Amino acid sequence: MTPRDAALRTSAAAVLERCDELATHSSLPDGLIERVYLSPEHAAVNALAAGWMREAGLTTWQDAAGNQCGRLEGATPGLPALLLGSHLDTVPSAGRYDGILGVLTAIAVVDRIRSSGRTLPFALEVVAFGDEEGTRFGTALLGSRALAGTWLDAWWELTDEAGTTLHEAFVAFGLDPAAVGRAARSSNDFVGYLETHIEQGPVLEEQDRPLGIVSSIAGARRFQITITGKAGHSGTPWAHRRDALAGASEAIVAIERLARDADLIATVGHLEVFPDAVNVIAGRAEFSLDLRGRFDADRDAAWQRIEDLLEEICAARGLHVAVEQTHAAPAAHCSDRLRAVIGAGIRAAGDGTADASRAPLELLSMAGHDAMAVGHLTEIGMLFVRCAGGVSHHPDESVIEADVARALDAFEAAVLTLADHDGAA
Amino acid sequence: MTPRDAALRTSAAAVLERCDELATHSSLPDGLIERVYLSPEHAAVNALAAGWMREAGLTTWQDAAGNQCGRLEGATPGLPALLLGSHLDTVPSAGRYDGILGVLTAIAVVDRIRSSGRTLPFALEVVAFGDEEGTRFGTALLGSRALAGTWLDAWWELTDEAGTTLHEAFVAFGLDPAAVGRAARSSNDFVGYLETHIEQGPVLEEQDRPLGIVSSIAGARRFQITITGKAGHSGTPWAHRRDALAGASEAIVAIERLARDADLIATVGHLEVFPDAVNVIAGRAEFSLDLRGRFDADRDAAWQRIEDLLEEICAARGLHVAVEQTHAAPAAHCSDRLRAVIGAGIRAAGDGTADASRAPLELLSMAGHDAMAVGHLTEIGMLFVRCAGGVSHHPDESVIEADVARALDAFEAAVLTLADHDGAA
Repeated sequence: MTPRDAALRTSAAAVLERCDELATHSSLPDGLIERVYLSPEHAAVNALAAGWMREAGLTTWQDAAGNQCGRLEGATPGLPALLLGSHLDTVPSAGRYDGILGVLTAIAVVDRIRSSGRTLPFALEVVAFGDEEGTRFGTALLGSRALAGTWLDAWWELTDEAGTTLHEAFVAFGLDPAAVGRAARSSNDFVGYLETHIEQGPVLEEQDRPLGIVSSIAGARRFQITITGKAGHSGTPWAHRRDALAGASEAIVAIERLARDADLIATVGHLEVFPDAVNVIAGRAEFSLDLRGRFDADRDAAWQRIEDLLEEICAARGLHVAVEQTHAAPAAHCSDRLRAVIGAGIRAAGDGTADASRAPLELLSMAGHDAMAVGHLTEIGMLFVRCAGGVSHHPDESVIEADVARALDAFEAAVLTLADHDGAA
Repeated sequence: MTPRDAALRTSAAAVLERCDELATHSSLPDGLIERVYLSPEHAAVNALAAGWMREAGLTTWQDAAGNQCGRLEGATPGLPALLLGSHLDTVPSAGRYDGILGVLTAIAVVDRIRSSGRTLPFALEVVAFGDEEGTRFGTALLGSRALAGTWLDAWWELTDEAGTTLHEAFVAFGLDPAAVGRAARSSNDFVGYLETHIEQGPVLEEQDRPLGIVSSIAGARRFQITITGKAGHSGTPWAHRRDALAGASEAIVAIERLARDADLIATVGHLEVFPDAVNVIAGRAEFSLDLRGRFDADRDAAWQRIEDLLEEICAARGLHVAVEQTHAAPAAHCSDRLRAVIGAGIRAAGDGTADASRAPLELLSMAGHDAMAVGHLTEIGMLFVRCAGGVSHHPDESVIEADVARALDAFEAAVLTLADHDGAA
């Protein structure tokens, strides 16, 4: 192992230790991880990340939406920045790498570049977004949309499970809701955005590749679907039943079949029934639908068919259905320039093969990312890191140290490639 | 209206006022009713019922399982008793008559008989059972099974949603778990058990009858079914998904079809998914199944087929299924003698028709009742009262005053018919 490789392994080990440390900041007991937007755990990990950013030479601030930010000036002060980052919030019972690995990789790469003494033709900024998953308020990308300037006033009335509004949560976190616009940045602030993220899919592992270039991020639409029937005694005869859960179950099975046939991914991850008692017919069932696909048009056409299907199923059962869209994101394309830059980074780091002629793998991301929101401001590029079994959003989420070392190497090389091109431009 | 009819209407109005008063003792806000076993609300309604029992001339006690009891001696002290009663606990978001009407009818009828100065060849006891629905601990008929002497020690470890065990709840209510056996009565204590209850079905209304005789009570079996898959990101491709909620939904639809075909009633009223997030595939789904039918053998055969079906569905999806029976009651038959007595009571009160030759209607009860448990001790008989739209276990549960007046008349006549027969025997 060369001294450089040894240093990369040391950095990778430090990144993984930091992932472990962040994992201890959780609202769940027994080692399970949940960390939601504007929670005490959010404040705690922002403080930790800020400390690590300062150790890496960045000046730091928490923006008006609770995103933790840092900046290292380039060759001259005040240059536009290359933005590097990802998010620190999680789903319930999460893994320890989704989002987190991207933030810590960004900090480590800035540290390596600063330590090398090299000056760049742009500033480097690192951002740790406070909300990508949407766990608390049901709407995703709140952190990155604040930075992108696409915040919606309608969000202030979103509530969490305890009935707290987003507006109240801002105040409780010490933020001024009226000032959220100050988190919004301008296109002129940035030369681009690069994000490292675990793949959250099985392709890299199946193809025996440690790293990949993201070609584009599939757009997702999310809906809250409420089916209303009538609660009643569990002994009620069939002709008199209007069972909301039976209707919801039929809908979930039908949605699955339709989405498979249309080559889309559909997930019903949340379902709640009322009054939820063993001897009472469900009078109401509420469930979520997350619908995503390679092409926005296919996804939107499928949603039309799903709406018809819901109406049909409910009409046949004497039920009422109401749907509300809670999230919509178009597919986001990674720019040719930043895909080339990520590809050059992977080639420089080596692609886990002796065959140097092998082109880095390009993948579609079925998962959503902060990059989608940042894409409203500036070009985006993403580096994917292999994860075990394609598993994410689960405690078993896992990466290996050698892949993280290679990711650090590739991400650094990508930044330097962009600097060379920008410098040459 | 005769003075007797006017007095019955006054009594019926008083019974309905007491139903309204009991409805105010609830753990839910906004006028919704929920009153579970061994809760503060349970203590409050026991105290109210005890007061009404004493006004009716009964001596009262709360038994070792929290059932509220009262006794009026017969011609001589210490005679076996005719037991009259029902329950005061409720499901969540309940109506105000299920169980409650039977307790208040029993008290009112004892009051009428005592006031008439008539002495009977048996004592009269009234019982207000503390748990029929099983809302709190998932196992039904806890109150009546304590009285019947069929209490199971295994129940002490049952827990409510807050994790409180039944044992702890006994202590918190001021009861001694070690003394629960003292609630058990002997067959020799009773000459029979009569219960008034709303129908919880549409038959009486459809047939334009205010009252009916219960022929038998369908047995129910209840199961907790747990399907385990693997939580994961909502963007995970189909081949890698092991979605517990998709499996549960397919199972619920299949159970419904199978039960309909087998002329059984199946209800999935409770369902919970984990981790229950919009962007996470469900790793686990837990749901209840309540299965009931006219014949125990048909029901048990259907359950065998459902178990096979669950295995097939889960095997095809890479899921694991576990089932646990939480309740099992065989069909309970009302005795010929007490069916005749109830029938005589209905004829005496008039069956809502000018045609005196019309025989009172006999109905199967698809809902479970305390009578099932008491049937282990003594003969049982039940009087059904028409309810609006067959609706129960819902805030819309409703009866009309004229039907309650007729029920009081019929129930009193049934008791006196039995007294005449017993006196003649």
